[in-house]
Amino acid sequence: MREAIARADVGDDVYGDDPTVRQLEAETARLLGKQDAVYMPTGTMTNQVAIRAHTEHGDAVLFEQSAHVYMLEGGAPSAISGILPRLIPGDRGLFSSDQVVQAVGAPHPFFPSTVTSPITLLCVENTHNNGGGTVWPVGLSTDVAETGRRLGLAVHLDGARLWHATAATGISEAEYAAAFDTVSVCFSKALGAPVGSCLAGSKQMMDRARRFKQNFGGGFRQAGIIAAGALHALHHHRDLLPRTHAMAQRFAAGLSGIDGILIDPSTVQTNIVRYRLDGVSSAAFVDALHERGVWMLPSGGDGVRAVFYLDITDRDIDDALDAIGSVMTTIERDAAPIATARY
Amino acid sequence: MREAIARADVGDDVYGDDPTVRQLEAETARLLGKQDAVYMPTGTMTNQVAIRAHTEHGDAVLFEQSAHVYMLEGGAPSAISGILPRLIPGDRGLFSSDQVVQAVGAPHPFFPSTVTSPITLLCVENTHNNGGGTVWPVGLSTDVAETGRRLGLAVHLDGARLWHATAATGISEAEYAAAFDTVSVCFSKALGAPVGSCLAGSKQMMDRARRFKQNFGGGFRQAGIIAAGALHALHHHRDLLPRTHAMAQRFAAGLSGIDGILIDPSTVQTNIVRYRLDGVSSAAFVDALHERGVWMLPSGGDGVRAVFYLDITDRDIDDALDAIGSVMTTIERDAAPIATARY
Amino acid sequence: MREAIARADVGDDVYGDDPTVRQLEAETARLLGKQDAVYMPTGTMTNQVAIRAHTEHGDAVLFEQSAHVYMLEGGAPSAISGILPRLIPGDRGLFSSDQVVQAVGAPHPFFPSTVTSPITLLCVENTHNNGGGTVWPVGLSTDVAETGRRLGLAVHLDGARLWHATAATGISEAEYAAAFDTVSVCFSKALGAPVGSCLAGSKQMMDRARRFKQNFGGGFRQAGIIAAGALHALHHHRDLLPRTHAMAQRFAAGLSGIDGILIDPSTVQTNIVRYRLDGVSSAAFVDALHERGVWMLPSGGDGVRAVFYLDITDRDIDDALDAIGSVMTTIERDAAPIATARY
Amino acid sequence: MREAIARADVGDDVYGDDPTVRQLEAETARLLGKQDAVYMPTGTMTNQVAIRAHTEHGDAVLFEQSAHVYMLEGGAPSAISGILPRLIPGDRGLFSSDQVVQAVGAPHPFFPSTVTSPITLLCVENTHNNGGGTVWPVGLSTDVAETGRRLGLAVHLDGARLWHATAATGISEAEYAAAFDTVSVCFSKALGAPVGSCLAGSKQMMDRARRFKQNFGGGFRQAGIIAAGALHALHHHRDLLPRTHAMAQRFAAGLSGIDGILIDPSTVQTNIVRYRLDGVSSAAFVDALHERGVWMLPSGGDGVRAVFYLDITDRDIDDALDAIGSVMTTIERDAAPIATARY
Repeated sequence: MREAIARADVGDDVYGDDPTVRQLEAETARLLGKQDAVYMPTGTMTNQVAIRAHTEHGDAVLFEQSAHVYMLEGGAPSAISGILPRLIPGDRGLFSSDQVVQAVGAPHPFFPSTVTSPITLLCVENTHNNGGGTVWPVGLSTDVAETGRRLGLAVHLDGARLWHATAATGISEAEYAAAFDTVSVCFSKALGAPVGSCLAGSKQMMDRARRFKQNFGGGFRQAGIIAAGALHALHHHRDLLPRTHAMAQRFAAGLSGIDGILIDPSTVQTNIVRYRLDGVSSAAFVDALHERGVWMLPSGGDGVRAVFYLDITDRDIDDALDAIGSVMTTIERDAAPIATARY
Repeated sequence: MREAIARADVGDDVYGDDPTVRQLEAETARLLGKQDAVYMPTGTMTNQVAIRAHTEHGDAVLFEQSAHVYMLEGGAPSAISGILPRLIPGDRGLFSSDQVVQAVGAPHPFFPSTVTSPITLLCVENTHNNGGGTVWPVGLSTDVAETGRRLGLAVHLDGARLWHATAATGISEAEYAAAFDTVSVCFSKALGAPVGSCLAGSKQMMDRARRFKQNFGGGFRQAGIIAAGALHALHHHRDLLPRTHAMAQRFAAGLSGIDGILIDPSTVQTNIVRYRLDGVSSAAFVDALHERGVWMLPSGGDGVRAVFYLDITDRDIDDALDAIGSVMTTIERDAAPIATARY
Repeated sequence: MREAIARADVGDDVYGDDPTVRQLEAETARLLGKQDAVYMPTGTMTNQVAIRAHTEHGDAVLFEQSAHVYMLEGGAPSAISGILPRLIPGDRGLFSSDQVVQAVGAPHPFFPSTVTSPITLLCVENTHNNGGGTVWPVGLSTDVAETGRRLGLAVHLDGARLWHATAATGISEAEYAAAFDTVSVCFSKALGAPVGSCLAGSKQMMDRARRFKQNFGGGFRQAGIIAAGALHALHHHRDLLPRTHAMAQRFAAGLSGIDGILIDPSTVQTNIVRYRLDGVSSAAFVDALHERGVWMLPSGGDGVRAVFYLDITDRDIDDALDAIGSVMTTIERDAAPIATARY
Repeated sequence: MREAIARADVGDDVYGDDPTVRQLEAETARLLGKQDAVYMPTGTMTNQVAIRAHTEHGDAVLFEQSAHVYMLEGGAPSAISGILPRLIPGDRGLFSSDQVVQAVGAPHPFFPSTVTSPITLLCVENTHNNGGGTVWPVGLSTDVAETGRRLGLAVHLDGARLWHATAATGISEAEYAAAFDTVSVCFSKALGAPVGSCLAGSKQMMDRARRFKQNFGGGFRQAGIIAAGALHALHHHRDLLPRTHAMAQRFAAGLSGIDGILIDPSTVQTNIVRYRLDGVSSAAFVDALHERGVWMLPSGGDGVRAVFYLDITDRDIDDALDAIGSVMTTIERDAAPIATARY
């Protein structure tokens, strides 16, 4: 990948003439079955540009209540797009089309349309990070998206981790994406490129996205340098993802044998393992792990998130399990763990 | 009141020299135990100016999940103040200080403070409209407010219906307001003035509020005309509110005898009665009532909201109960009522 | 007027059923030749709701460089509507269609459309406050509006003082308004009603305006109380405006004989008189006048603005001229007057 | 540079642990004499994050009327930061401290502070792009900045091209930056790195900047890959800039001998050459040049902007002058060139 980066053919992306960016955008659009795609510096920017492009200030947007775009993107949906989040409680991040119907509600002449914010966009996240890397059954996500469109909403798929859904099920990214107006995908994270994400959708919507990309400060110049890394990851790393899933499952199986760890290994579908600690504060737990060289994230009062990526080895997993076992035998039990943000 | 309005002494409120507005602001501030108050055209504006004045774009704000400021003010918290709502699930609109602690969460070095929005404001609504006119026990609301302040949050009280809490309990508005930085109160609604609300707080915060009042388009000129009505209501109508509460209770007692109506009369604390319909869509129900000259609001799929104000008589209640009984015997049962907005 | 206010028939304007508001809106729409009108608490709100309704965040809007909507509405065009002002230098507030063409510019393939903000709205102010109450020749304002529309812009007329243009020329408000998508008019100021303004335009645009009126906190309840005053002013005060213009001219003629006052009386077209002081700081000048019971506003370093309204008498003018003469003989000359805001 | 990029040591910049990014930030801060610096994907983002960090929505900001941050950053100052631009007319982009005093104005009790937006930030651009690459005399820019601070404003320096001021005068970047709270510098453009800019200032302000960088979608991950290119440019390319200035001067001298070209070669101070065409539309002119393989930008009706960067050779200049001469002998004269945006 570094060789590809060093050799990258570049131009000025603000003028739309960086050939490597153009190639990345074209390949990503094709892969997702959309007319066009726009390369941006971050996954946050692709999601937030999508929200901005689909709405106007004062609209309301339906999010699953622990969605990354709502919880972990710096408040941007409201700060920059001025939209009011309306939340759907999901089950490990998934919800039904009935919940969409319920959340949108029926109009009634006694409600002046002025008083409530019109809901104009529905967001779905696949795989769902806070849900634990959950894969949406394609029938369910399509049903939810079509229900949204039937109710007049635009529908956006936060597919930062969509590669993992495909790796887990063999269903193509395009099939997951088909029912959605726009889809974001990320080349860093588990796919292993250093920087960047794409938003894909219709030509008209991508023209709008390019406007807001510039507005948000995303109009980088000779971006082909990093697009080359993204292209390399797209060509060579998608096939490697099942390995990260297998490692996650092996790790989860190992966890289930450790005293004080609460986990149902059958919920591990991709490269994320979420587990809980029995009477232990996760903040203290991850600090203790960190001292032993293992990085995991605390999440809520007693939750932990472990994420697997390409460079992790079987040996790393054994070491992590050993470290966890050792920490759990020594750490203080805590009646009421203080919550940290869910991450 | 109309006589008071016709005789009002006026000036230019933008220049701060309308004497009637000044008097209303001074009396309201005194009543609420605050340094200063600002008169504005609507309750929505007082709440939204408070949110704007306490925060900056990109902050997060804690609301109870069915709070009026979040649900029914046109998306303004995000559209105009750019804040991200974080929701606390209440019990009939009330919540505990533990829930506040949980919602704010603890910082941890693995969470870059940049990623999550900083929570900087907590809003409480007393009485709680969507909760059914619920009165906060003053100890509980004080505890919640003090917990918020201890965590570094500003605390705002949406007291549009605060007069009802005082009417129901005898505890003064100032005592309810004491733990909060800012308090809004409304002179229209049950208090019976035609137009307007006040926001009260410190002198410094009210200076900020005056700036944003102008910014929002609330800098009306000879506003003494309507402030005179508000003053009249303040002087003469607060004592009449217990009558509306008694009527609400009589109505609730009547409702509990009607087949197909689900209500616990003990939950009726002020002038709002919320009840549910067994297998009947509330949208169809209120339409049928409306044809019989009775106005109530559908709320959610099978919920109804009835509000009592000064001009309602005992006879009106008998008529309403008759109409409801008649509608319930004839209306079609509906397996799955379509949700309308909760209002 | 106070009698009309005291007798007003009222309802709930948020539900659209206040009969006096409805009548005011219908009459205003008819007078301006538009399909519909919306009553709001302030002129600032009507203008800012128009800007909000015609644009989206990130658009650019053409203003004359001293326009009230740009200079004196609390920064709302950018704070609330998120639009970037682009300024046209006017001559006493007036500009030509060539200046519009120049300001919009021609597209060129080397300018990525993303980099510059798309200009989507043009605002015109008639009469022009900072220009000195200037009346637009109807041919010129129509040409400017039509040029804007030909270039794809929406066109809004800030007609807070449009009554004065009609009073000065006999050309109807509807004729001035015809080429514009939306028009605001104000019932307070010289027309003498206590509170409120209307925005008029197509039915569709007014539906959008009602949404943002609520969003901005303008959804007042029994607003018929003040709408009754506005209706009274509309029916009875428009014919009185020429008197204020005659007084302004008499005042300007008097001023031109006072030593140290710089004024061209031929520029006084309506009820505003702007004049300059030779080597005197206007801030000190208006303070000295104020002590003598005469209120005028300083504007820029050496400018003064005097405004005439219905209650001013010939005697008041004589007194004001005497006071000015007396101040000018005693006040200190000042080499470099410090600028105040132009107001 | 590509080798440095390929070898870059990387980490996760969102967690603040990318070593190459950290090194770039530290070196840039030191070079500019500030406590800290933040690396971002674009110059637009550094400037717009600075505006956001120094202000709140509803404030006003002083810009030179053709400033890049105002004219060519997608409307972001208003769209994202909600600030109202107030414009100072510069002379080739430069202005005096008297103009700052005049623009801020003096407060007066007759102006309610609520009506005008408070001006809280002043921006200066050095070198000034639309001014023609103008270098600010360091005494003048320091005086302007200190005047701003004395009036209570924050002061930001858009130093995207600050390297050129130093290359032209030998005065260090730190000396230019000293009077300013924040400074942005750009590593792409003439410095030749592929992507990225830094904002520098106090530790506290940079903490705020990191928050908004994330908010805007600038929190890229393994950004060390591109930071390595920026570091290389910082170490090796600043010394090469005088060559681009010499070429610009040679080009300007050549232009002055071509019939129909209006230019004063003495105004060329850095790597930008702005010239005008006598009776020729610059849009048609640059199209004709483009066909001959020379890229320049049209700017306004008859203006052209030529920019010189490291890879341009003496031979390229001769070719460009030949092409221009040839175009000017054949192109149609145009009485009234249609304006394009000034770029």
